Amino acid sequence: MTLSVGVLGYRFMGKAHANALARLPMFFPEAPEVERSVLVGRDEDALADAADRLGFERTATDWRDVVDEVDAFYNLGPNHVHAEPSIGALEAGTPVLCEKPLANDLESAERMAAAAEKAGDGVPTATAFNYRFVPAIQYAKNLIDAGELGEIRHFRGRYLQDWLVDPEEPWSWRNDAEMAGSGALGDLGAHTLDLARFLVGDVERVSGHCRTFVDERPVEDSDETREVTVDDAYSAQAELAGGVMATFEASRFATGHKNDHAIEVHGSKGSLKFSLERLNELEVLREGDRGYQTILVTDEDDPYVEHWWPPGHVIGWEHTFVHENYEFLSAVAGESEDYQPDFADGLAVQRALAAIQESDEHGEWVEVE
Amino acid sequence: MTLSVGVLGYRFMGKAHANALARLPMFFPEAPEVERSVLVGRDEDALADAADRLGFERTATDWRDVVDEVDAFYNLGPNHVHAEPSIGALEAGTPVLCEKPLANDLESAERMAAAAEKAGDGVPTATAFNYRFVPAIQYAKNLIDAGELGEIRHFRGRYLQDWLVDPEEPWSWRNDAEMAGSGALGDLGAHTLDLARFLVGDVERVSGHCRTFVDERPVEDSDETREVTVDDAYSAQAELAGGVMATFEASRFATGHKNDHAIEVHGSKGSLKFSLERLNELEVLREGDRGYQTILVTDEDDPYVEHWWPPGHVIGWEHTFVHENYEFLSAVAGESEDYQPDFADGLAVQRALAAIQESDEHGEWVEVE
Amino acid sequence: MTLSVGVLGYRFMGKAHANALARLPMFFPEAPEVERSVLVGRDEDALADAADRLGFERTATDWRDVVDEVDAFYNLGPNHVHAEPSIGALEAGTPVLCEKPLANDLESAERMAAAAEKAGDGVPTATAFNYRFVPAIQYAKNLIDAGELGEIRHFRGRYLQDWLVDPEEPWSWRNDAEMAGSGALGDLGAHTLDLARFLVGDVERVSGHCRTFVDERPVEDSDETREVTVDDAYSAQAELAGGVMATFEASRFATGHKNDHAIEVHGSKGSLKFSLERLNELEVLREGDRGYQTILVTDEDDPYVEHWWPPGHVIGWEHTFVHENYEFLSAVAGESEDYQPDFADGLAVQRALAAIQESDEHGEWVEVE
Amino acid sequence: MTLSVGVLGYRFMGKAHANALARLPMFFPEAPEVERSVLVGRDEDALADAADRLGFERTATDWRDVVDEVDAFYNLGPNHVHAEPSIGALEAGTPVLCEKPLANDLESAERMAAAAEKAGDGVPTATAFNYRFVPAIQYAKNLIDAGELGEIRHFRGRYLQDWLVDPEEPWSWRNDAEMAGSGALGDLGAHTLDLARFLVGDVERVSGHCRTFVDERPVEDSDETREVTVDDAYSAQAELAGGVMATFEASRFATGHKNDHAIEVHGSKGSLKFSLERLNELEVLREGDRGYQTILVTDEDDPYVEHWWPPGHVIGWEHTFVHENYEFLSAVAGESEDYQPDFADGLAVQRALAAIQESDEHGEWVEVE
Repeated sequence: MTLSVGVLGYRFMGKAHANALARLPMFFPEAPEVERSVLVGRDEDALADAADRLGFERTATDWRDVVDEVDAFYNLGPNHVHAEPSIGALEAGTPVLCEKPLANDLESAERMAAAAEKAGDGVPTATAFNYRFVPAIQYAKNLIDAGELGEIRHFRGRYLQDWLVDPEEPWSWRNDAEMAGSGALGDLGAHTLDLARFLVGDVERVSGHCRTFVDERPVEDSDETREVTVDDAYSAQAELAGGVMATFEASRFATGHKNDHAIEVHGSKGSLKFSLERLNELEVLREGDRGYQTILVTDEDDPYVEHWWPPGHVIGWEHTFVHENYEFLSAVAGESEDYQPDFADGLAVQRALAAIQESDEHGEWVEVE
Repeated sequence: MTLSVGVLGYRFMGKAHANALARLPMFFPEAPEVERSVLVGRDEDALADAADRLGFERTATDWRDVVDEVDAFYNLGPNHVHAEPSIGALEAGTPVLCEKPLANDLESAERMAAAAEKAGDGVPTATAFNYRFVPAIQYAKNLIDAGELGEIRHFRGRYLQDWLVDPEEPWSWRNDAEMAGSGALGDLGAHTLDLARFLVGDVERVSGHCRTFVDERPVEDSDETREVTVDDAYSAQAELAGGVMATFEASRFATGHKNDHAIEVHGSKGSLKFSLERLNELEVLREGDRGYQTILVTDEDDPYVEHWWPPGHVIGWEHTFVHENYEFLSAVAGESEDYQPDFADGLAVQRALAAIQESDEHGEWVEVE
Repeated sequence: MTLSVGVLGYRFMGKAHANALARLPMFFPEAPEVERSVLVGRDEDALADAADRLGFERTATDWRDVVDEVDAFYNLGPNHVHAEPSIGALEAGTPVLCEKPLANDLESAERMAAAAEKAGDGVPTATAFNYRFVPAIQYAKNLIDAGELGEIRHFRGRYLQDWLVDPEEPWSWRNDAEMAGSGALGDLGAHTLDLARFLVGDVERVSGHCRTFVDERPVEDSDETREVTVDDAYSAQAELAGGVMATFEASRFATGHKNDHAIEVHGSKGSLKFSLERLNELEVLREGDRGYQTILVTDEDDPYVEHWWPPGHVIGWEHTFVHENYEFLSAVAGESEDYQPDFADGLAVQRALAAIQESDEHGEWVEVE
Repeated sequence: MTLSVGVLGYRFMGKAHANALARLPMFFPEAPEVERSVLVGRDEDALADAADRLGFERTATDWRDVVDEVDAFYNLGPNHVHAEPSIGALEAGTPVLCEKPLANDLESAERMAAAAEKAGDGVPTATAFNYRFVPAIQYAKNLIDAGELGEIRHFRGRYLQDWLVDPEEPWSWRNDAEMAGSGALGDLGAHTLDLARFLVGDVERVSGHCRTFVDERPVEDSDETREVTVDDAYSAQAELAGGVMATFEASRFATGHKNDHAIEVHGSKGSLKFSLERLNELEVLREGDRGYQTILVTDEDDPYVEHWWPPGHVIGWEHTFVHENYEFLSAVAGESEDYQPDFADGLAVQRALAAIQESDEHGEWVEVE
């Protein structure tokens, strides 16, 4: 059996997932066979070019024509077009992988999660928090679950980029509250909040702080400017399940930082640190250690590593998408029980995002449902 | 002219300042001559031993007998005994250096600052935020003041220790709200808040989060336990003057971290990072740089360095006290205009500490006066 | 026009190159089209499996049947089978990419280079020193060529692994002088010597030191042991063209190091450092800098990066093979003038390897022809 | 009983040792009492100033007048004046601490060691290899002696500075073969060779490489230049006792490196790394570890640390002199059995230095006696 995959979106994320699909046969021979069936978009010329380059059999300009024809539907469009196509696919009984954050607002995310629940266990969903699939993060998860760090006390996460430092950097949909929902918060913070939930536990209460440093930006190829209606940076304090203290932060104004997603966890017995820019490494301090061990998580028995190369031969950012696709498609093919992070996980993160925004508006702590 | 110095407190801080005083003549020959005149404490035997080892001429058991006899009075006692002796000294017209935080509560700090103001410009005061005197921090300050980082956007500070991870670690005055005022917040956070003010600007609004992980601790040499009435860890979000976003955190439960005081600053043109455990280094990213430079701040023309050793010959934690004492005593001797951080600075930090506690209690942002 | 490629060898290197070929169309659309035509090996079952997994159209058990049928021949076999098939291919006018080191002995390497020269400019050859194609290394090369480091004084290279620390680690062909030529020297040192030549200049004189720590090893699935006839580690001192002092070292006994290939260069104006385990980074100190900048070489205008992902989205070890294959196949297709490192470069490294061995045997410095 | 100390030399090393002597009473109360008795030099004015600043009671212009009057004689002059005053002191039965390297040539070092041997056990000698007294190095020594690293296979040491990169940097005695003996080799390499002997074992055979990049330098306050007759950089390969492979290197032309003395050791069970610019840290990989632990060697039970500050409060370069003086003076006072590194250790290093130079001249390996 070959799974046909339909993909909405053909830019950055389209390329990342197409590459992942293309690499499965050589490295994950046990994965279901996959056909890059149809690529969905509006601009027919650009779409045709992309389909050719990314290896799709055909193109379509309306997702409605696609969602009931494919075995899995990937929604890689901007945040404000996450809801309708995803819900449409689910109503057609088609499994859906949707990029993060799950939606541009909480209400949409709730409808998406409801649709997923209604579709039932046989129709897997995925919110594409790909950083769960970094081998070092999986290794961290195993350490924590095995109690190697003891009782967790602190979680600290931040995601730093600098692509908006220049006030002349042009406006894009990512600067628009309607389309994006939020700025650094939803785009970057969603990843951090998901890792906190994955590694430590649910976000129970938050106090948020959002900030826009540059209020309007030039529109490309025009003399006009357009308003920035999202945050350029956010920070948050939180309590996670079990009384864990947490701090979160993200910025698009952190000069010199390109894609610096870093987390730190302290438990009663040990601690760990991770940074995406050195994603093959995990720093771990276990009971009895006097300092953090800088571990290259590339040994044969490390998560996913046996599929790739010998110890010390590092992998890259894109490999997380291969792992994610492998797991999701295995679930779609019915070869694995369950897939996570699913739409329920996406919704949980969306609730935290919304709570952070609400807290920022009211200057008070907010409970996350 | 030789300045006579009276010191209240003969433990950790007593040793640090006595050492600083002892080292001035060889390394800062332009410093005023100093006499370690009198050491003040209660336990006469321990006091006599300490005076002998630390090079004091005599001892006293009541600070009242001392404050008007010396040219400078150092108050190195626990936080709850900061106010009365310091105010007593100031009323006698004696310059005072007081350990941080300035007091165990805001009201005491206000009285101390009022006494300092009343004593006037000729009676210098110091709140002993010694980390201002790390060469790398002074170098950072110079960079920021010269505009090398551009407009500052973010300040991030944290101070991690792990000495209370073990619930059997005995109770001490540092765990008591009356004596200490607060826990990690006042002991560690005060340093970070001071560096934020020094490098970037005043703390204007805060949202705080405090947490006690272990509620009672064994009393040493006893079967009893005693309540812990301070925080084991805190975090805070803040706005600094000029709209800078800031995050703060400290913990005594950060397993594996001994004295890890780290700050990071991002501006529109550059960024910097500092960690106390590598205090000879500053990481700096300037306009045109593609990555942080790891700078060893030990060149001849770096702040204070010419007094010590050739480039690359690193100094230690204790050297910050020598610099601090040099600056304060120069002010006492009337050889320099002004000394900072003074009691007004100590009060400003105390207001931020109080605001963080108040914010934590009420779950709301609090303006710092 | 589609280039057909025949590949001898289907294990580690077979997978690395097959992956590279498979990824070209999506990421290097300007590369020639390539057909994974035929996979060559002896064990027919294993070969058939590999061909299926690696995407080859057919298999062959004799390279003689292949070398004149394909547009490019990849020799990925053990060192002692580098010469004959490569020479056979060149005699048939077929371009050859051969894994490193070029041969198991100098005489074979000389014959291979002679065959390459005889085949002429229209028949490109490659010695597969893939680390030249790390973006950070290309960036380093550009800096040096542009004079950013000034006159080069020092080159320091080392390659540390630990897979032979355990004396029970079984014997393999890599432990045999006839098959491998040398041990850590040829397997690891060849890479370092190539980078020295690429970045700085030819190796002119060497003093070598080789050492075997474990003299015999168990034969897998047997009670016997077999003699280790190669070095477990080597070091060398050298003079490179222009009077550069160089030191080299490699070991399979460096406990805790998996694939730690590190180089350092000091010039009169600047310095740089690189480590393969953090291959997205280059540490650079330029004129006017006070410390090394830790540069993430993932910007759009960094070598090869625009083909992949946005800034900060790191690539892995395998990407070096994609770059290498792109460059070599472009030369095969006549779309680029010249390809390096070719067999002449492979021979130059082989001369240095031989000189190091000779120096070790005689205890004297040896000139490299 | 108070020990009187006479010191020849009042510049860099004079200050380092005077400071060490001054700090003993407060931090090492169990150390013998010491009197900075007499400072010896030629320029009476400079000498008087130095004696005043460094706390010496009197001055002398001829060491002959001093060596039999003091309880310990410190020879901190340039290398070519190490021999006669040291031998004179020993002949007077006075313990001697001499700066490193022990002498400017092997013959002088042999005479000095012979004089030490003749003086007998009651007259301790010290060659001032202060880096043995870094807590992290002592900790490393303890690990190795306890077998934590298993059988040692590799030692790698290098000492990088950059103060001669500029060809206009003026000539000094350190550039003169007669006065200094050698350049980077003796000044920096002597420290590395001593650490190799201390941590791992005797240097048995060497192959050396020396190089002078700039042949003549301007004489300060003059229009003339003077010849540089020592090496600007050296490298060496060696075999240490027990078959350990070793590599050594030092340079005064390593742009960007100020005082970067780094060593690495690999054993069959573990490895370690140290760098002087982060002297409070040791990186250790033990059996069962997956990566190097970055250990802050500042715990209460770490070597010498209890004398200083609480965990995480780092010490500096100068503290190594305090430890060295404490140990040496304890031996002088008869309170400890033995002191090392003594003149015999200094001679052993001098033999290795001489062998490296001889090897460089003849292009052959040389046995170290």
